[in-house]
This record gives sequence, structure tokens and C-alpha cells, in this order.
Amino acid sequence: MASEKPIGLFDSGVGGLTVVREMFRQLPQENLIYVGDSARCPYGSRPVEQVRQFSFEIMDFLVEQDVKMIVIACNTATAVSLTEARVRYPVPVLGVITPGSRAAISATRTERIGVIGTEVTVSSGSYAREMHRINPRLQVVSQACPPFVKLVEDGDLDSQETERIVRDYLAPLQHEMLDTLILGCTHYPLLQPVIQKVAGSKVQLISSAEETAREASFILAEKDLLQTDNPAPVHRFYTTGDAAHFTDVAERWLERKVEVRSLSLGIK
Amino acid sequence: MASEKPIGLFDSGVGGLTVVREMFRQLPQENLIYVGDSARCPYGSRPVEQVRQFSFEIMDFLVEQDVKMIVIACNTATAVSLTEARVRYPVPVLGVITPGSRAAISATRTERIGVIGTEVTVSSGSYAREMHRINPRLQVVSQACPPFVKLVEDGDLDSQETERIVRDYLAPLQHEMLDTLILGCTHYPLLQPVIQKVAGSKVQLISSAEETAREASFILAEKDLLQTDNPAPVHRFYTTGDAAHFTDVAERWLERKVEVRSLSLGIK
Repeated sequence: MASEKPIGLFDSGVGGLTVVREMFRQLPQENLIYVGDSARCPYGSRPVEQVRQFSFEIMDFLVEQDVKMIVIACNTATAVSLTEARVRYPVPVLGVITPGSRAAISATRTERIGVIGTEVTVSSGSYAREMHRINPRLQVVSQACPPFVKLVEDGDLDSQETERIVRDYLAPLQHEMLDTLILGCTHYPLLQPVIQKVAGSKVQLISSAEETAREASFILAEKDLLQTDNPAPVHRFYTTGDAAHFTDVAERWLERKVEVRSLSLGIK
Repeated sequence: MASEKPIGLFDSGVGGLTVVREMFRQLPQENLIYVGDSARCPYGSRPVEQVRQFSFEIMDFLVEQDVKMIVIACNTATAVSLTEARVRYPVPVLGVITPGSRAAISATRTERIGVIGTEVTVSSGSYAREMHRINPRLQVVSQACPPFVKLVEDGDLDSQETERIVRDYLAPLQHEMLDTLILGCTHYPLLQPVIQKVAGSKVQLISSAEETAREASFILAEKDLLQTDNPAPVHRFYTTGDAAHFTDVAERWLERKVEVRSLSLGIK
């Protein structure tokens, strides 16, 4: 019983497009609906309850669109809404934190893992908790990097000023002898070149985007929901922010034309 | 409802120990039971129906030991018994082919993927079928490498003769412009250094072992069967072949002491 229904994804803005790009690559036949909540971005410095409300408002919208699966393509929203969402909705809901955690456990050789993310994600302790459930011996150190999301939303990916900011925020991790660093925010893979340069070539960066697409593939296969024989998949993009700006970022990152619609959400 | 029951794994011989090593790393708190059917190894050149019978005989034994999950840590046995096993047993059954396929899809950038394995695995076409379901555009070329399993069972991992044999069998793949090569037999990761040398540093090798442990972790978490808070897990090893030889290979590969028991199976 393969399913032609779309997969629904959302993020606080353009960060979740890193997951979309991986979905294109790893699940090229799936129909997708993406919501980027740029008007209310960033989520990462907001009160938890507000992020929770925003997340459920968007997931309700996706379920109304009859999606077969929800991917919370945002670490902050995953940290505050995944557990509840899995009970609330009749479709599988996948976050980005457990895939990134499992990938880091698989990648590390020294059992010293770093996590960078938004303030909400880091203070939730979700990554460390998830990894310690599986392996209590792991050393996990975290660092919140509040300005990174705005750099990405503004498209400021490789200036000298960006490198200086990245260097400042990674400085506390430089003496931790990490061999693996989790990019614990879906915006961060767009900064991957500068983060890799600052962290050094010996540190393996884990992109939640790549891992999440892989686990989505796995869940769809397990539940017999994979879309096969669909050479012309439909991808719909919605943004609550400026559609022209979103289109610009999306087309550069996804390397294809996209049609972006405006979406108005109630809670401000 | 975390489960203290062991995970059951089996292989035609010592190859599945590559999966065990990854389980130690990625699921260090799990209790394990491993059966290596060295007396009837190799499976890969036998009639399909015989491999099927051997596989179910061992899985029946594992289910009698009250395992919470079965991992078919053998590509040949996966190719011929996975679908039926998933219907037959009340516990989750995981093979090594879909994890390796998904990892290759995630790794490739050029969409040109090679698969090496036993004759049964290669002639089953399982890898190509699994990958094409997800992405029909992939170019997949396969090569059976019958002597490799015996090299590993004999512990002959790095001699000049081994390198010559690997070079001979990989020769047909050398002009295929592959960027990814699936080690489609759990014995092959023990030959990884020589395979990497022959294939060249630009080809990414995909070990089913690493990927399978990761998907096992995922399934256990999904089904709430993860073992947590178990600092002294129990690992039981059975072999149908020579226990001293099996112990020797296992202790070198796993880098720890193991206790190996003899197991007598009915079908010869």
C-alpha cells in the first residue's frame, strides 16, 4: 500500500530546506509540503510554550493537507513538541534530534561529542538525554549559538564577520577534544563550510538533515508508505514571511525552481 | 517498557561479528546472543532452499531463547529468508540489505553504486531492487566474489595472495566510475583495508554492519525495547564449528574476551 500522499515538513524558516534537499536526494519520488515560519523566526530564543503553540498550529495545517507523515525539520520545535505530537496525530511524526543523536553515536570513536544549537534546544538537554539513554559513557558538551539562525535567514553564509561570529561561539568547545560535532539546528548545514574550517578537519560534523531524511526513508518503508513509480513528484512550499526572499534562498539551496505560496497563521 | 531480553543475531560464520562489534559500540547496554554457523559455511554458494532451511533452523533456536529482536547478520540469509521471517516470528526481524541500501543512497553523489557479495546475494538482485524502489535513476552494478568469505573464515586478511584475489574480483568494477561500493556480505568489513586499497580512496565503502546496528537502535527505540541502565550486559556466542577457532577470531575482532559454546544443529 504505497502512499501518494505528501510528506509534511516545517521549520521556523529556511533551515528545514536542508532536510528538503536531502529528501530530494534520498527520497526523490516523494511529494512534499513545506512550511517555513519565517515571519516568526527565530524560534530558538522564544519561550517554550510559544514555540509549542506555533508548532502545533503548523502541524494542524499539515494534517489538514492530508500528509502521510510529519517531519519536524527544526531542532527547537522538535525539543518542545515531538513527544506530544506523536500522541496527537494519526500519522508518524519524526523529529531531527534522535536521528542526529544516533548518527553521532555511530560516528564517534572517542565518545566525546559536541552539540551546537539554539538556546531552547541546548537548554532542553534533548541531545545529551537521547544519547545517554543509549550510551551513558558518552561525554557530551553543548553550546548555544543564538546568532547563527539569523545569519542563515539573511543569507550571510561566508563573510568575514560570519566567520568571526562562528569562531567566537565555537571557542568554548575548542579544548574539549571532540571528534564529532552535531549541527543541532537545521539552519546550520548552510554554514557547514565555515563551521568545518573553524572546528578543524578532524572533527566530523553531523547534519541532522541528512540523518533525518534517512530515518524518514526507513519509517516509510517499515510502514509500507514509500512512494514508488512517481517520476514527477509535487513539492509545495509555504512561507509566513516574505515570499520573494524565501524563493531566492530556496532556489539557491535546492538548485531548482520552486513555487512559494504565502501562508497566514493566526498566532502572532 | 524497556526490555532486558537479548537481541539474537546469526551468520553463516564469523562475518556477523562485524555487526556484533557495531552493536557493542552503538548499543553498548544490550544483551546479545550470536550464532555463527561455521560448520555449514559458506552459505553464499549453496542452493537457495538450503540456505533458507538453515536460516529458519537458527531463527527458531533464537526465538526459543526468548530474544526481543532477530538480526540476520548475513546478506545471503537476508536475501532468502527476511520476508518470510518477518511474517513467521512475533519479534522484529532486521536484515542487512535495506540498511546498506539506504546508507549507499545517502552516501552517493554520482548515483553510481557498486555491490559486492556472495553468488546468492548478487544473483538475488536484492540490493538493486531495494535501491531502485527508492530511486529508479541509480546505476547499480554488482559483482559476486565467492572466495572472499573463506579468506575471512581462515583469518587470511592481509596477505599478498589475498590482495591479488581482491584485485581480480574487483577488476570488472574499476571502469564503472563508482563513487560508492556496498560491502554486501558481513564478512567483507574484515577485508576493508585491502578492498579500500584496491578500489581507491575516492570510493566510499558502505559496511552493512555499521548501518544495521544503527537501524537496530532505531527499531528498538521506536518499539520501546531499548535496554537502558544495564552496565554489565551479557553476550553469548554459539558456533556450530570449531569453538577454539571461533573464539580466536572473535576475540581478535571484538578486542575482548568471549565465551563460545558449541551448538549442534540438525540439518547437515
